Amino acid sequence: MSFDILQEKILALKNPTVAGLDPLPDYVPKFIMDKHISEKGETLEAAADAYYEFNCGLIDALQDIIPAVKPQSAYYELLGPAGVHIFKKTLDYARGKGLYVIADVKRGDIGSTAEAYSGAYLGSVKIGKTELFPFDFDAITVNGYLGSDGIKPFIQTSVQRDKAIFVLVKTSNPSSADFQDVLTGGRKMYTVVGDLLEALSQDTLGKYGYSRVGAVVGATYPEELKFLRQRLTKTFFLVPGYGAQGGGARDVASAFDAKGCGAVINSSRAIICAWKKAGKDGCDFAEAARHEALKMRDELRSVIPFE
Amino acid sequence: MSFDILQEKILALKNPTVAGLDPLPDYVPKFIMDKHISEKGETLEAAADAYYEFNCGLIDALQDIIPAVKPQSAYYELLGPAGVHIFKKTLDYARGKGLYVIADVKRGDIGSTAEAYSGAYLGSVKIGKTELFPFDFDAITVNGYLGSDGIKPFIQTSVQRDKAIFVLVKTSNPSSADFQDVLTGGRKMYTVVGDLLEALSQDTLGKYGYSRVGAVVGATYPEELKFLRQRLTKTFFLVPGYGAQGGGARDVASAFDAKGCGAVINSSRAIICAWKKAGKDGCDFAEAARHEALKMRDELRSVIPFE
Repeated sequence: MSFDILQEKILALKNPTVAGLDPLPDYVPKFIMDKHISEKGETLEAAADAYYEFNCGLIDALQDIIPAVKPQSAYYELLGPAGVHIFKKTLDYARGKGLYVIADVKRGDIGSTAEAYSGAYLGSVKIGKTELFPFDFDAITVNGYLGSDGIKPFIQTSVQRDKAIFVLVKTSNPSSADFQDVLTGGRKMYTVVGDLLEALSQDTLGKYGYSRVGAVVGATYPEELKFLRQRLTKTFFLVPGYGAQGGGARDVASAFDAKGCGAVINSSRAIICAWKKAGKDGCDFAEAARHEALKMRDELRSVIPFE
Repeated sequence: MSFDILQEKILALKNPTVAGLDPLPDYVPKFIMDKHISEKGETLEAAADAYYEFNCGLIDALQDIIPAVKPQSAYYELLGPAGVHIFKKTLDYARGKGLYVIADVKRGDIGSTAEAYSGAYLGSVKIGKTELFPFDFDAITVNGYLGSDGIKPFIQTSVQRDKAIFVLVKTSNPSSADFQDVLTGGRKMYTVVGDLLEALSQDTLGKYGYSRVGAVVGATYPEELKFLRQRLTKTFFLVPGYGAQGGGARDVASAFDAKGCGAVINSSRAIICAWKKAGKDGCDFAEAARHEALKMRDELRSVIPFE
């Protein structure tokens, strides 16, 4: 599922939103958590079951208006192995509803280990004579600090299995400047990373002109986003930081090309915690999420030139 | 379990070796894999059970001569949720044998997400009124590309729960130079990262003079290792790349201070795959691993000034 598939879903819905499925215990309405605690006690397994019910409700409410979801692995790993089990079940449920699923795992390692990660999340492993697909996400996020031999295994698997990756370039957090903005030979570090990604992926272009190697560029840095869009013309962008982190529609407008292609905008807490503003103890969490996602869609439509 | 605990174990055994528990299907002797496939078929669960039996055999054979083990998360994630379950079980088994356990997860993210990762691997999560400890490793590896606010949550959890972290500084792989060696204001990127780690961790010094924030520095770059040891005087080093990746005892000698403290050296394939050189189909995998680990210990003792 290269970015062509994602781009087609975006164009069909005229909505470049990806909803971040990033649960924490207090993001789940109490009636759901209580139900599972009454079944399995105050355990990681009970919380994992509650996350799954919450996720399914969100997916059901959003699946006809958004093209993609992005579960953040950290929040599932926080429940130990039981959480990782639900991470996989959430993928399967979302895929069944026709959604494109980006695993936000930010993995990265030396070549041989990066091969194992790419096999885990995008590819396969052979046990005896049987090829098995451990997670099989459509795309994942990658941390490229280890350099090109840590990135290439993910590209190879993406080409083999029609997948895609997003490598961290300029992240949305306040201290992303510490390392990403250091200046070297006239370029900032994030530009050095972005330029290498374009070089590594030039043979993987799809029909919208984008390669299989995307970049994570935060909505919270609109100037850098604009600069990188103009420079990295073949690189699809995953833009986090919309909503709860402070980015707005005008901040992300420059992430798109003249046809309204080339980027997907993530919002997590603003959508999945929308029920907290509705004041009804979460019984309406799905409707609240849908309402917020429609609002975001309309905001984005107002600044993006969809044809 | 700060680095004091690890340093004491190293000094007691006069051995700064950490064995990497990095299984792949063909690293496990056939008789073990076949046994579990006959029980559960050619499944991820069968392979996970085989990894666990292999790991327990290695731990039993090594526990009285090495201070620490380092399971690499990627190889467990390659078996999906079943593999992550065994990752946790391996930790529990090794801890029960008195080993210090470093999870090589290389996680890193924006502040709120880094909090979830630090809770998962070093800390806790509250479900209802119950505090639960999802993995509870002694130390983990961290990728710091997101900057200080992505590193601080790991330091906070380390202080609260007597844990420690190793942040990637100069990695052992061939293309680590791509980003880590770029020059900025007279310093290479890995020095910029190392200097920030020393600044962030200065209030966490233990009795051997090292903070809770260590650095990953590859054995394959002995000049850089020597330079960083001299510059980062408060930073404990995790040194991968020994053995199969090409580093030798003389290459890592400079990782230690004048008292033989301040570093731990990792070897993975050379130890866990030692049975492949013995030519007996792996029935002696544990003895072969012990033999190789003793050889490495003696090589290291010949270059390190243990008091």
